Amino acid sequence: MPSDLFIVGGGPAGYDAAMAAAKRGIKTTLVEKEHLGGSCLNWGCIPTKFLLGAVASLAELEGQVKMKTASGQIQLDLPALVDRKKRHLEATRKAMAAALDKAGVQLVRGELKMIGAVKSVVTVGDEPQVFEYKRCILATGSRPAAHPGLKADHDAILNSGDILSLREVPKSLLVVGAGFIGLELAQFFSRAGSAITLVEAAPRIAPSEDEEVSKALHQSFKRMGWDIHTGVRIAALENAAGRARLVLEDGREFGADKCLLAVGRLPNSRNLMLEMLGAEVKGAGWVHTDEHLMASPTVYCVGDVNGRTLLAHAASSQGEWAVRHFAGELSDPYEPGPIPGCMYGAPETMRVGIMEAQAREEGMDVKISRSQMVANPIAQAHGATGGLVKCVWGEGRLVGVTAVGHGVASLATLGTVLVSQGWTHKQCEEFIFPHPTLDEALKAALLGPAA
Amino acid sequence: MPSDLFIVGGGPAGYDAAMAAAKRGIKTTLVEKEHLGGSCLNWGCIPTKFLLGAVASLAELEGQVKMKTASGQIQLDLPALVDRKKRHLEATRKAMAAALDKAGVQLVRGELKMIGAVKSVVTVGDEPQVFEYKRCILATGSRPAAHPGLKADHDAILNSGDILSLREVPKSLLVVGAGFIGLELAQFFSRAGSAITLVEAAPRIAPSEDEEVSKALHQSFKRMGWDIHTGVRIAALENAAGRARLVLEDGREFGADKCLLAVGRLPNSRNLMLEMLGAEVKGAGWVHTDEHLMASPTVYCVGDVNGRTLLAHAASSQGEWAVRHFAGELSDPYEPGPIPGCMYGAPETMRVGIMEAQAREEGMDVKISRSQMVANPIAQAHGATGGLVKCVWGEGRLVGVTAVGHGVASLATLGTVLVSQGWTHKQCEEFIFPHPTLDEALKAALLGPAA
Repeated sequence: MPSDLFIVGGGPAGYDAAMAAAKRGIKTTLVEKEHLGGSCLNWGCIPTKFLLGAVASLAELEGQVKMKTASGQIQLDLPALVDRKKRHLEATRKAMAAALDKAGVQLVRGELKMIGAVKSVVTVGDEPQVFEYKRCILATGSRPAAHPGLKADHDAILNSGDILSLREVPKSLLVVGAGFIGLELAQFFSRAGSAITLVEAAPRIAPSEDEEVSKALHQSFKRMGWDIHTGVRIAALENAAGRARLVLEDGREFGADKCLLAVGRLPNSRNLMLEMLGAEVKGAGWVHTDEHLMASPTVYCVGDVNGRTLLAHAASSQGEWAVRHFAGELSDPYEPGPIPGCMYGAPETMRVGIMEAQAREEGMDVKISRSQMVANPIAQAHGATGGLVKCVWGEGRLVGVTAVGHGVASLATLGTVLVSQGWTHKQCEEFIFPHPTLDEALKAALLGPAA
Repeated sequence: MPSDLFIVGGGPAGYDAAMAAAKRGIKTTLVEKEHLGGSCLNWGCIPTKFLLGAVASLAELEGQVKMKTASGQIQLDLPALVDRKKRHLEATRKAMAAALDKAGVQLVRGELKMIGAVKSVVTVGDEPQVFEYKRCILATGSRPAAHPGLKADHDAILNSGDILSLREVPKSLLVVGAGFIGLELAQFFSRAGSAITLVEAAPRIAPSEDEEVSKALHQSFKRMGWDIHTGVRIAALENAAGRARLVLEDGREFGADKCLLAVGRLPNSRNLMLEMLGAEVKGAGWVHTDEHLMASPTVYCVGDVNGRTLLAHAASSQGEWAVRHFAGELSDPYEPGPIPGCMYGAPETMRVGIMEAQAREEGMDVKISRSQMVANPIAQAHGATGGLVKCVWGEGRLVGVTAVGHGVASLATLGTVLVSQGWTHKQCEEFIFPHPTLDEALKAALLGPAA
C-alpha cells in the first residue's frame, strides 16, 4: 500500500521528520541504508562528544596544574572508551528503531537507487523494490569530503569516521583541515597524548568563525603545544610504509603515525537522477530547495544534502517543518531564525546570528561590545581564562553573539533566544543573571561599552 | 559635605548600588566595615566556586572511572589552592576599590553604629563620625547563623567562612545543615578526601528544593559514600580535645576531625536602632521593606538583610533598583520577576519560578513534564547520568523549571528567560536548540508529555 510520506535517510532530519509525521497520523515509510541516527549519531556529533567527555578530566586538571593547585596522572583506556561509545550508539539506534515501530513508521533497510515524483526504487537486500507515495522527503545527508590527492586510505590516512574507531592513541597525528571537525578531534587526541600538527589552507584556523575567535583558539592550541600551519597548500599526502607523509607546496614535509582528513563534507546525492525530477543540483551535488524546502513539486529536500546549514539541529528543524508543510499546518516560507553553532572541548566556541564582518558588509549600523573570559570567576576557578564573548548590535538590537573559552558552548541556547528576540541594551540591563555563572561573561559582554 | 546617597555595606547590593549611583552623577558615600565584595566574594559564592573548580577534574574522573574508560590519581594542593583563592579575592577587592574611586564614590572604611533618617554615625578607626545624606541604602547583608548549643568555636567547629581557610583536608568532616552552603562545601571536601557525615533537621536534604531534586541529590551523595541523617535533632555539639563531637537527641554519637556548621544565615541588623526610624524588624532581625524596598521614608534596605531572597544577584538587582527609584527613574513597585537559584558542583541543581508543590498549593491548573538526564548524550559522555529536569506549567505556560544533575546550573539563565516570558509548549516546539547540548535535557523536559 502506498505511503503518504516517503522519507529517505534516517539521520536527524529524516528520523525527526518520520516521528513528526507519525504523530500526525501520516502513513510514513522511512528508508535507511546503514545506521539510524546518520552521521550525527554514528560518526559525528555524538561519538566526538563521548571522546571529549572522556578527556574533560584532563582538561580540568591542566587548568589546576597551570595554577599549581593540583597535580596528577590520568590514563585513558581508549579501547574501553571506543567500546563504551559503540554500545551507546547501538543502544540509541535500537531505541530509535523501537520508537519508529511504536509510532507506526515502516522502516525499510535499503538504499535509494532512483528517485521519482511519486515512486522511487530502493535496493532492499539485493532486490530493487518500488515504493509509491504522495510526497518524498529526501534527507540523505553528507559524507566526509575527499579531494584529488587528498583521500583517506583508512589505514594511515583517516577520515573523521575512521578515526573514531582507533584503539591506540597515535604518538603523532597530522590533522588536515581546521574546521570544527578537525579541531574537536585534534583536541581529543592531543589530550589523549598525540603530538598534533595542524594544517589549514585558509589564512586562519576555524576560518568560518569571527576573526577574534580564531585568534583566541589559535593561542589556546599553541599553548597546548600544537604545531599549526595556516595558509598552506598541500602538494602530496601519502601512506609511506604505514605512516602518513605530507608535503606542502612550499616543500616542507611532515610525517605522523596517522593523518586525519577533515576537509569538509560532500552531499549524498550521487546517482539519484534528481535532475529527472526537475531538481537543480549545484556544485558537488548540493540540492537546491525553494522557500518551502522543496526540490521539486513532490520532493522536499532537508538536512545537509541541501547545503543550507550542515548542523544536526538545523536538519531536524527542516525535517519537522517539511512534515508540517505537508500536513498543511503552515504555508509561509521556511524561516528558522538564527541557528546556533558550537565547537566543543576545552576551549569551546559558540556563535549565533550575524557576525561582525557580515554585519559590516551588509552596511548595518554596527556596534560591538565584548567581555574577556579572564574577568569571569567561573573561568578563573577552572584556571581557563583565555577567550572572550563578543556581541554584535545592529540598529540598537542584539543581532549576533559569539564566544570562545571555557564552557562557552553552554551559552549557545541562551544566546539564540536573545538574538532571535533582538534584545535591546535596556532589556539586558533589567534581566537578572544568576551569580556566579559563566553566563555572566555573556552579561558582561551585553552590558559592556558598545562601539 | 553631605552626600545625596549614603550606602552601608560594600557587598553585591551596596557596591552595585554605589556604581549605579555614580553612573547617574549622584554624590555617593559607601561605608564598608571589612571587605568590599561582602559575603559573596569573600566567604560565599566565589571562594566556594574556586574550591569546586579545583575538584572538577576529580568529579570528571569519577565519571570515567565508573565507566572503566580511564583511571588515575589527582592530588589537590589545598594550601596552594587557598593561597590562590586569597590572591584572587584580594585582587578583586582592589579592583572594586579602584572602580569606586574612578567613579567618584567616597569609600569610608568603618562600621555603622547608629542609623538616622538623614544622618548616621559611623565608627572610623576608633572615632565616631557623622555622615549626612538625603537617603540611605542599608545593605549590611547576613552572617552564618549560630544557635544555642550550635556555635562555631573556629577550631573544631567551623562556620562556612572559617572552613574556607583550612590548609589541611580533614580526614572526617561532619556537616550540620544540608542547604546549598553545606552541600557545596561537603562536595568539595568529599572529593578532596574527607569522609562526610551529613546531619539535617528537615526530613530531606536540600529541603527548600523540589522533592524529586532532593531525592536525586540524596542518591548521588549516597553513591559518593556520605553518611546522611535527615529528620534528626541535635542534643549536643562540642569540641572534645580538638575534635568535633555531636550527639543526636536519639542518643547516636558522631565524631569527626572538623564540623561545618551550615545552619542558615542571620541578618546583620544588630544595634542599628532601626526601630527609632519607624522601621519594622522581624524575627532574628530581618528588616521589613515596602513595595519600593524602603524600610522608612529615607532608608532603602536591600540584599540579604531584608530577608527577601538571600542571593547575590537578587541583592545586586535590589541595590540598583533602589538607586533608580531614588533617581526618579521608576515609581512602580519592585517586581524583579523570577529569580534563579543554583547549587554548584557535581551534581548541580537549578531552580527558577514556581515549583510543583507551591503551584498546587496556590490552586493553579498545574501540569508537570520531565526528562531524565540519562537520556542526554552530554551527561552520558561525562558518565554522570543521574538526575532530571522538571518543568512546571500553569494555565498552559511555563511557570517554573528545576533540574538536578551534571552541569545543570548552566540551565539557570536560559530557564529564567523562558519562565519570565511564560513560554508555551508551541513556542518551545518551534525553537531550535543546538545539538548535542546539555540544554537539550531542558528541551526534552519542555516537550515531554505534561500531566
